[in-house]
Amino acid sequence: MKPLMIEKLLHVLKSKQGNQIFNYTVPDLWNCFDYDPTKFIKTNTNELLVDPFDFYQSVIKDYILPNKKANVDYQTSLSISNNKVLPKRNYRGGDWIKESVVYSTMIRTSAAWDSDRSGVLEENNIYHMTETGSFVKMLSLLPLLQKMGVDTVYMLPISKFSLKDKKGELGSPYGVSNFNEIDPSLKDPLIGEDMTVDEEFSAFVEACHILNMRVMIDIIPRTNSVENDLIKDYPEWFYWIKADEYTQYKVPFIDGIPNTTSPTVELMEKVYQHENTTRHINMFQYNPKEQNPTLWNKIRNKKNLSKEIEKHFNLRIAPAFSDHINDLQPPWTDVTFFRMYNDFPQETVEFLDTTNRAPYILFDTIKSNLYHGKEPNRKLWEKLADIVPSYQRRFGIDGARIDMGHALPKKLLDMIISKARENDVDFCFIAEELQPKNAEFAYEAGYNMIIGNGFTMEPRYFEGKLQKFFYESTKLPLPVFACGETHDTPRLAARDGYEQLAKTLTVLNMFMPNGVPFINSGQEVFERQPMNTGLDCGPNEAFNLNEDDPYFGKLALFDRYQFHYTNDRRWELPDILDTLKTIRQKWIKQLFQKDAFVPLTTGDQVNTFIGLAYYKKTKTNSKNVLLILANANPYHELYIRPNIHQLREQSKNTQLSGQLLFSTHEGPRVFTQFTDYNNLDIHLGAGEVKIVEL
Amino acid sequence: MKPLMIEKLLHVLKSKQGNQIFNYTVPDLWNCFDYDPTKFIKTNTNELLVDPFDFYQSVIKDYILPNKKANVDYQTSLSISNNKVLPKRNYRGGDWIKESVVYSTMIRTSAAWDSDRSGVLEENNIYHMTETGSFVKMLSLLPLLQKMGVDTVYMLPISKFSLKDKKGELGSPYGVSNFNEIDPSLKDPLIGEDMTVDEEFSAFVEACHILNMRVMIDIIPRTNSVENDLIKDYPEWFYWIKADEYTQYKVPFIDGIPNTTSPTVELMEKVYQHENTTRHINMFQYNPKEQNPTLWNKIRNKKNLSKEIEKHFNLRIAPAFSDHINDLQPPWTDVTFFRMYNDFPQETVEFLDTTNRAPYILFDTIKSNLYHGKEPNRKLWEKLADIVPSYQRRFGIDGARIDMGHALPKKLLDMIISKARENDVDFCFIAEELQPKNAEFAYEAGYNMIIGNGFTMEPRYFEGKLQKFFYESTKLPLPVFACGETHDTPRLAARDGYEQLAKTLTVLNMFMPNGVPFINSGQEVFERQPMNTGLDCGPNEAFNLNEDDPYFGKLALFDRYQFHYTNDRRWELPDILDTLKTIRQKWIKQLFQKDAFVPLTTGDQVNTFIGLAYYKKTKTNSKNVLLILANANPYHELYIRPNIHQLREQSKNTQLSGQLLFSTHEGPRVFTQFTDYNNLDIHLGAGEVKIVEL
Repeated sequence: MKPLMIEKLLHVLKSKQGNQIFNYTVPDLWNCFDYDPTKFIKTNTNELLVDPFDFYQSVIKDYILPNKKANVDYQTSLSISNNKVLPKRNYRGGDWIKESVVYSTMIRTSAAWDSDRSGVLEENNIYHMTETGSFVKMLSLLPLLQKMGVDTVYMLPISKFSLKDKKGELGSPYGVSNFNEIDPSLKDPLIGEDMTVDEEFSAFVEACHILNMRVMIDIIPRTNSVENDLIKDYPEWFYWIKADEYTQYKVPFIDGIPNTTSPTVELMEKVYQHENTTRHINMFQYNPKEQNPTLWNKIRNKKNLSKEIEKHFNLRIAPAFSDHINDLQPPWTDVTFFRMYNDFPQETVEFLDTTNRAPYILFDTIKSNLYHGKEPNRKLWEKLADIVPSYQRRFGIDGARIDMGHALPKKLLDMIISKARENDVDFCFIAEELQPKNAEFAYEAGYNMIIGNGFTMEPRYFEGKLQKFFYESTKLPLPVFACGETHDTPRLAARDGYEQLAKTLTVLNMFMPNGVPFINSGQEVFERQPMNTGLDCGPNEAFNLNEDDPYFGKLALFDRYQFHYTNDRRWELPDILDTLKTIRQKWIKQLFQKDAFVPLTTGDQVNTFIGLAYYKKTKTNSKNVLLILANANPYHELYIRPNIHQLREQSKNTQLSGQLLFSTHEGPRVFTQFTDYNNLDIHLGAGEVKIVEL
Repeated sequence: MKPLMIEKLLHVLKSKQGNQIFNYTVPDLWNCFDYDPTKFIKTNTNELLVDPFDFYQSVIKDYILPNKKANVDYQTSLSISNNKVLPKRNYRGGDWIKESVVYSTMIRTSAAWDSDRSGVLEENNIYHMTETGSFVKMLSLLPLLQKMGVDTVYMLPISKFSLKDKKGELGSPYGVSNFNEIDPSLKDPLIGEDMTVDEEFSAFVEACHILNMRVMIDIIPRTNSVENDLIKDYPEWFYWIKADEYTQYKVPFIDGIPNTTSPTVELMEKVYQHENTTRHINMFQYNPKEQNPTLWNKIRNKKNLSKEIEKHFNLRIAPAFSDHINDLQPPWTDVTFFRMYNDFPQETVEFLDTTNRAPYILFDTIKSNLYHGKEPNRKLWEKLADIVPSYQRRFGIDGARIDMGHALPKKLLDMIISKARENDVDFCFIAEELQPKNAEFAYEAGYNMIIGNGFTMEPRYFEGKLQKFFYESTKLPLPVFACGETHDTPRLAARDGYEQLAKTLTVLNMFMPNGVPFINSGQEVFERQPMNTGLDCGPNEAFNLNEDDPYFGKLALFDRYQFHYTNDRRWELPDILDTLKTIRQKWIKQLFQKDAFVPLTTGDQVNTFIGLAYYKKTKTNSKNVLLILANANPYHELYIRPNIHQLREQSKNTQLSGQLLFSTHEGPRVFTQFTDYNNLDIHLGAGEVKIVEL
């Protein structure tokens, strides 16, 4: 085993601690580890004044390292270091995700704080420290995550991304320019040159492992930044257009095809016949190396390669766009597609003359799960299939989400998944698959779960979609994320229902059948501002904050952003989740057993009532039914009488008393609302969730 | 001339500046001197992040010292250093106050700031600096004061006060324990041991003088702290009671006399007949020295003298109380009265048997302007009459307010005033006289002005008292303060009318006939919380802030307090006053000439309309009438037609056009509202003040 980087980090922090008096703040929420109260002052803004060197040392020394065991290798995945033997039945390697609670974090934002309180989130504050997030600062959030029952830290891309034509103030981490390097902005200047950003990430992964938490990353094998480190070696892996025609580049609109339509072969024939398509594909050019190998060799090692190519070849990388026909999004100017095949799609090659035809981006060439060439771009595929192994080897990560995996050639996806599982049989893969109907394909591809569509279903509780999402999830071959928001969607606290809805759903999601609770960073403090407005957003979604808020109009995915960690309700959800995690652990097996779950039904159609019952087969007298009773309506209370006949039949529980384990609302802790053998009389306040054991 | 302390201060600040990176804030309002913008960051809380050593250096180096002239002695009063020759007519030494604008400051509060933003105003913050005010920090407010046209800094007591049984968190500066020493809490730890608090005060006075500003202090010759430095030398100067009867000490209530009645001789006869009085005066004892000189000599130099006296003599100093009969205030437990005479009042001595009678506090013995012994306490009188000269000699102050001067023996008051004027013929005295009807007495006593009752009159604009206050002031032999609030009263911004009223009156007060504008520290930022609830306060006056305000319920006179210097409207009044000061300067002579002032009257009785006209006798065509037109009603606009016939007659101004120099409200800058020769058609918005030259 290599020396632990988390120990090196502790050492470096200690060595750098000096006599400087710091007026440096962190949100009090970051202190879930009983930081020595003589070492900080709590301000009336819910911040702690700390010496950062001491504070981050303390979380390592007093919270993380005491959990370290001897002879455990924390630099491999938790499953490897635990020598996990996979159960034989109903378990695919990586299925540990089912019993997890996932926290989705974007390090740059989740660990961001205006620590010098200058009013601006600086990369270089008055102490020459960064105020955007880093792995080092993220360590101090691990106690909060553990309090909430989180055991899997899922990170939005951490790879080096391009700053060329960057979106927003800081650029998007989805515009990857080198998937094997970690973005230098995540390096913490607090640590200085004594450690590299890779070592800091190692320290973070080790810390998670020591705390029995898993680490998942987000990989993006289909697209890449238009300015990336692969161009100089592999210009033929990209699509090119004339630089001086760049401004005319647009997605061909095809009359007579509805908006956002999947590109079937039949439709593609029509697409190829359209003059807009002809105009579009004629813009594409051969790559510079192919055009003039001598000139290419002269310039390919120059510093500003894009500029050189533009100057000498009049070429630019062609931007990506949606693979749906007549999706109205403009081209994604920051990213491009990899050329998955060296030739043209066999399915559509007959629709055009390919003589002297440079490779081009179109709905078919980029939808490689449906359209295939004869010649796979082997070298590229090997490179892409080695992204995960590279992170496994270097950092011992536990899983990954594959961005747009469903649009990759099936064989490439197989390679990616199998190569990772060769290293770690229990490696987990999450499919970026939003449609439950596609869960079957994802299952067959080898994924452990899909993201699903909780974010569109749950907030539509008035239409009964929350009910449907919960009650029908057991039919899926894979679990979905039990969540109402992601980094691409509106925040729950900004949906109709606001904080109350966010609270109801955050609680309910801990008990969704076949669902993996997913907390979107910021959700725990009722953040209202989305991180991105990519999915299901209203026209003013980016303006959910008050106008005088310093982060008004800012999106975490592109801009300097810090969550509202110091608001008055900041401890409310963490405290609730702290209570719920024990109940969840006790019933975790039942949450994923189809035959242990009974949805409660009522005579009336009440869209907003969710009744979940789980039962255990026990021989003892212990409580063997768990009831989750929720009124998702955040505005009105609810009196309801669900039928429990089926439940009693199955559970053989004939008792008429229950114990109220938890409620989102104040009230007596007794639960005696049985009217007769078959019915339960329930009162639920607006947005209330009651948890009862029978 | 001694070396300038302000230069020494600059030197010390410079010598102490180091490499420490400071996260130290001051309100942006404290930077009225163009502090180098590369040296600070402005936060979104309207604060500046500065290096305090550099910031305070800059105000001295870049704002104050550039005004220093050669061969001027800044350590004497401005009048002495200017070799001022008193005008012969209508000028009493000290009458410069008439043309002044006075800023009333309590250094501890006015220059207080939670600079480390810990949420608490600390005496010892994370940088081991004080966050309560100091003379050093007060320097950085001088530019703001000058912007507002202030040229006289009047300070609430700065003398050492007692912390014994202190009121509130910090104690009241009115509980003086040594009138010749400056309170050590005003020493700035930023400066350390390199300067004494006396030197820091000297630096402050010099700075004011360099900026052509005068400095006035508040002296308290009638009362003293119950624990003070004079007791050990002069126990006979005080009144004593038995320590074990202390809790029974109360003001004798006399049936049949109305509440708060002045103690005439007739009433005193009744008072002496009352059993409550007998009981009360029987509590008094001879002083410890007189009781047992040997024992006294043994203990008088011990450390905790009060305790020693209590232990050995069972004696305590008797607390003071109001000199009005049946004033319902309880005894003022922190202060006591000096014994002005060695014997009993001649006027009332016949009402009781004085055999073996220890000196006692009663409405007569403490009302020394009405009741006199035969034997003045000469030594005490000399001491009291030397307070001002002592500050003149050491600091070169320009004037003083005498606390309760009207209750001193007339001869003592004469001594105080004449001794100060022996040193400085132009020394100014302000009488703590609230009643305009007593202005004549104050004038005869030698004062230059009285405080007056603006604070009760102005806020009662609805009853026409503002009008009365303004229109009748020219009848007074002395000017009064043109103000609507003092440190003892409610804040204007908390009165009915709130910020609008505060704005209207702050503007109007700059042009009150025979009035000296007086800005109560904090008023300029619409402070709502009073500093003390001594006068004209409602029952909830101490709770004017929002409950979540860190200073909720705090009173500056007793507690840690900082003004709301960073609120959104903080620049509004300073900017207005900056404009008004030029107009005021142009018309300053007329403001104090009885025959240059004409109040504007209207046919209707409109209580809230104030119309002031001043005219100059000029031979040129220049504008020679100044009109101040105000609608004190903060809620409703006003259309009014005042008669200007008399004004035209006097001024010989027959023009029909005027120039609007200023308005509190937005609107056109033209003023053409004359209807005919005699009348003016005026529209005034709610609370509007218009200033017009004709």
